[in-house]
This record gives sequence, C-alpha cells and structure tokens, in this order.
Amino acid sequence: YYLFSAGQVFVFIAVISVLIWFLHYDTGLDWNNADCAGKPCVFNYHPPMMVLGFLAFGYQGIMSWRMLPDGLSHQTKKFIHLSVQVSGFVLAVVGIVAVFKFHNQHQPPIANLYSLHSWLGLVAMILWGLQVVGAVVSFISGVVPVENRVSFVPIHKHMGVVLYLLALVVMLLGIQEKLGFYQGDKAYAKLTPISQLGNIMGLSIVAIFSVCTTLMIP
Amino acid sequence: YYLFSAGQVFVFIAVISVLIWFLHYDTGLDWNNADCAGKPCVFNYHPPMMVLGFLAFGYQGIMSWRMLPDGLSHQTKKFIHLSVQVSGFVLAVVGIVAVFKFHNQHQPPIANLYSLHSWLGLVAMILWGLQVVGAVVSFISGVVPVENRVSFVPIHKHMGVVLYLLALVVMLLGIQEKLGFYQGDKAYAKLTPISQLGNIMGLSIVAIFSVCTTLMIP
Ligand code: HEM
Ligand code: HEM
Ligand code: HEM
Ligand code: HEM
Ligand SMILES: O=C1O[C@@H]([C@@H](O)CO)C(O)=C1O
Repeated sequence: YYLFSAGQVFVFIAVISVLIWFLHYDTGLDWNNADCAGKPCVFNYHPPMMVLGFLAFGYQGIMSWRMLPDGLSHQTKKFIHLSVQVSGFVLAVVGIVAVFKFHNQHQPPIANLYSLHSWLGLVAMILWGLQVVGAVVSFISGVVPVENRVSFVPIHKHMGVVLYLLALVVMLLGIQEKLGFYQGDKAYAKLTPISQLGNIMGLSIVAIFSVCTTLMIP
Repeated sequence: YYLFSAGQVFVFIAVISVLIWFLHYDTGLDWNNADCAGKPCVFNYHPPMMVLGFLAFGYQGIMSWRMLPDGLSHQTKKFIHLSVQVSGFVLAVVGIVAVFKFHNQHQPPIANLYSLHSWLGLVAMILWGLQVVGAVVSFISGVVPVENRVSFVPIHKHMGVVLYLLALVVMLLGIQEKLGFYQGDKAYAKLTPISQLGNIMGLSIVAIFSVCTTLMIP
C-alpha cells in the first residue's frame, strides 16, 4: 500500500532531521555534561531518543501487523510487534532520563515539568507504559482468559493509535519550544536555518499524523 | 451521549481559560495598538478569536449533525452546520489578520511566519478555507450533480475531522510558544500561574482531541 511507504519516507526525514539538528547544528552528545553552552551535553540525547523510540520504532511496531508478509504466523508477528514496541519504549525512557538529568544537574538547576510540552509528555509516557504493561499482561502472561483477551484487542488498538498521535503532538510541542530557545529577543524573531530544519521536521511529523489517521481510521 | 457533553465541558474550559489569560493576566484588547508592553494590544485578539472560531464554533459545527434533535429536516441541519462553520471561519480570519497586523506594525517589525506554529497555522487556515469552499460548491451551489455530491460526503467528513484535529494541534503549539515568551532566561524557567492556566487549557484541548477521535472514528 502506497501510504505505508509514504509514511516510511516521512519517518526517515524526521529521524535524519533530528540527528542533523542535535549532532551537527547543536552541540552534540555527552551524557555526563549538563552545560550545553558550546559543548556536547546530555540534553541533546532527549530529542533523538524520543524520535527514535516513539516516532520511528512506534511506526514500525504499529504498522508491523500490516507490513509483514502474510506467510508469517500470528505468533511470529506478535513477537515482532512486542519486541519493536518494547525496544522503542526503552529508548524513550533513556530520552526522558536524559532531560531530567539535564534539568537537575544544570547550574543553576532548571525546574522540572513547567511547560505544556513536559506535562503532555509525562502523560504520554505514563499511558504508553500502561499500554505496554496492559498488553504484556493480557496477551503474553497467560493470566487473562481468552474471551477477555479478545475483547481487549479493540481497546488496545484504539488506545495504541490515540497514544501514537498524542506522542506526535508532544514532539511538535518539543520542537516549537526548543526552536524558541534559539531566538534571542523575541521582538527580532527570525526564520533561521535551524528553524527551517525544525519546521520541516514538524511538517513531516504532521504528514505521519495524516498517514496514520487515514490508515488506522477505517 | 455522555462524550458530547464531556467535550462541551472541555470546550467551555478552553474558552474561559483563553479569555482569562488575554483579558485578565495579559494586557487586554486594542485593535489599533501594536505595542503590547503593559498596554492592551492587537495581538491579544489572536488567541481568543482562533479558539472561538475553530475550537468552539468548530466543535458545535461538527457535532451539530449528531446533537440536533432528530425532528429537524436535513435541510435545516445543513443550514445550521453551514452557518456555524462559516461564522467560525470568519472569526478565525479576524484572529489571523490581528496577528499579521501586530507583526507588521510592531516597532521594530516582527518577521512573519518564522515559527512551526505559524507554518502549520497557515496550512490549517488554507485547508479549512478550501473545506468551506469545497462544501459550499458541492452541497449548496447546485453546480455538482447529485451522484458526485454523495461520493464527496465521506471525503468531506474525513477531511473535516482531520482538519479539526490539526487546528487543535496548532492551538497547542501557539500556547507552548506564547508561554515561552513570558519566561525570561530559560535557565530560570518557572511554573508560573500563567503557565498553569495555559497548561490546563492545553490539557482541555487534548481532552477534546480524545473525545473527537473516539467519537468520529467508528
Ligand atoms: C513524544 C516525545 C517526547 C516526550 C514524551 C517528551 C517528554 C518530555 C518531558 C516529560 C520533559 C520534562 C523534563 C523535565 O521537566 O525535567 C521534556 C522536556 C523537554 N523536551 Fe521533550 N519530549 C519528547 C520529545 C521532544 C522533542 C522531539 C524535542 C525537541 C525537538 C523535545 C524538547 C524538549 C525540551 C527543550 C525540554 C526542556 C524544557 C521543558 O521541560 O519543557 N522533546 N520532554
Ligand atoms: C505501547 C506500545 C504499543 C502500541 C502503541 C501498540 C499499538 C497497537 C496497534 C495500533 C495495534 C493495531 C494494529 C492494526 O490494526 O493494524 C495493535 C495490535 C496488537 N498489539 Fe499492540 N501495541 C503496543 C504494544 C503491544 C505489546 C507489548 C503487545 C504484546 C504482545 C501487543 C500486542 C498486540 C496484539 C496481540 C494486537 C492485535 C493484533 C490483531 O490480532 O489484530 N501490543 N497494537
Ligand atoms: C488553530 C488556531 C490558530 C491558528 C491557525 C494560528 C495561526 C497563526 C499564524 C498563521 C501565525 C503567524 C502570523 C505571522 O507570521 O504574522 C500565528 C502567530 C502566533 N500565534 Fe497563532 N494560531 C492559532 C492559535 C493560537 C493560539 C491559541 C495561541 C496562543 C495561546 C497562538 C499564539 C500565537 C503567537 C504567540 C504568534 C506569534 C509568533 C509566531 O508567529 O509564531 N496562536 N498564529
Ligand atoms: C471547514 C468547515 C467544515 C468542517 C470542519 C466540516 C466538517 C464536517 C464533518 C466532520 C462532518 C461529519 C459529521 C458526522 O459524521 O457526524 C460533516 C458533514 C457534512 N457537512 Fe460539513 N464541515 C464544514 C463545512 C461545511 C459546509 C460549509 C457545508 C455546506 C453545506 C457542509 C456540509 C456538510 C454536509 C452536507 C455533511 C454531511 C451530513 C450527512 O449527510 O451525514 N459542511 N462536516
Ligand atoms: O511575536 C510575538 O512577540 C511577542 C510579544 O510578546 C512582544 O511583546 C508576542 O506575544 C508575539 O506574538
């Protein structure tokens, strides 16, 4: 189906953009340094990890049921879907740890959870975690009787799509916030190369948003 | 249906929040003043008009088909849906004119269209305008033969929902951006009363987002 592949192209653009942004235009990665002025620092792990974990792995995980060859057994597909989603979640957790570490170790410390981005980001993290736990308990652990499993599938699917959209929205807010930090005095706001890169990344995220709503909404 | 009414409550919270924010905490409205420092100014028309036009009128317009009493004729419902959507669009146009006027008349002038918010905002405006024109041409003008009208309905519905979600996302980005302007040096970022108000407004927009995805996705 063409839409899948269009989605893959936009996922690719978003991943490349975030890497160019934080490794090339910004100061690069250093897990042990919380001072970003001119030096590699721990904050710069946050955006790439979130984009890899949620946007890229999330896309492969959600689309895996439809992209994988029909020949594979349901068990195999389930194993792939599970592994991709769990790995993506682990990457995202690393990304969240990075930004809290950055705020706490910065001199002077930066407040945690002051922004709309961070509030919605925390909500998205928690619900994503519950989605993983809920799925593992009901589909893997064997604790839940088969009838109940079946009735949980539509809920899991619906929540999965809504959560993926929410994560995309949180990324857009993160981009908006971070680009604002590069503008000095807001009265002289300019469209700089870095804003163009960030805006293009944002447009590709919206494109993924549209592909997902179109594909997943029957 | 309970979800409609829950949605109405969140629409109400968002409208009240944006009014308290820009009339009470911020400096209030003055169409002819582009200097916001301590004085009422034209920028402050932008957020309330966008929220009224797109979020509030948009909600009533989209939900009108399902909320209006069954007794009304299709013609009457169509007229109501049309009037609400067209009025909402007019309010939103006023809101857009306000922010361009503000940027151009500000001393020194502020660049137009530098932010992710403004790029996606422009895209949302244009598509919303096309949606209105497309609907008027196909459903009202009589130019389009009835068979074609019928096949256009699902496209109109799907686009309508996706555009509404996009407008909500653009509002979240606008909130994130504007709250950033109140923070002085980001190293001292704080959770101020105004950020709390903005963040709560953002949470209610996300709640509307969830209500819409749940209601409109069969
Ligand atoms: C779905 C993906 C994402 C989630 C769940 C997320 C979550 C979070 C959370 C919870 C915080 C607060 C940390 C603290 O208060 O100590 C935060 C901070 C931050 N994030 Fe993200 N983030 C995501 C993606 C992004 C992206 C893509 C960017 C930039 C391109 C970004 C930029 C920032 C910035 C600049 C901060 C520090 C300022 C603040 O606390 O708002 N984030 N993020
Ligand atoms: C937070 C991570 C996860 C998200 C966002 C997610 C999302 C989704 C989505 C959107 C679908 C529907 C796919 C479609 O309709 O094509 C789905 C199906 C499914 N997922 Fe997940 N999932 C996650 C984690 C898991 C985990 C950890 C498991 C454990 C095995 C799992 C098991 C399943 C199963 C069994 C289905 C049903 C497939 C079917 O029979 O149609 N998911 N998931
Ligand atoms: C769907 C609703 C909205 C749309 C379509 C929209 C669209 C736009 C556009 C096109 C601009 C650029 C104007 C220019 O460059 O001269 C803009 C600017 C702005 N908007 Fe919005 N807006 C919306 C809602 C909001 C809300 C709710 C807020 C704040 C709570 C907000 C805050 C701002 C700010 C601070 C600017 C100036 C900075 C900039 O250009 O990014 N907007 N908006
Ligand atoms: C940008 C503004 C508009 C948006 C966002 C919008 C959105 C929608 C949505 C979401 C639906 C589906 C409602 C449901 O499934 O319950 C719908 C239905 C419809 N809209 Fe609009 N609409 C807009 C403007 C208009 C205009 C100007 C007209 C002109 C008459 C119109 C005519 C219709 C018609 C005829 C239907 C089909 C109702 C049916 O038979 O089920 N719309 N619209
Ligand atoms: O672009 C903008 O700059 C600021 C303003 O605060 C300058 O005083 C603002 O609100 C905008 O919309």
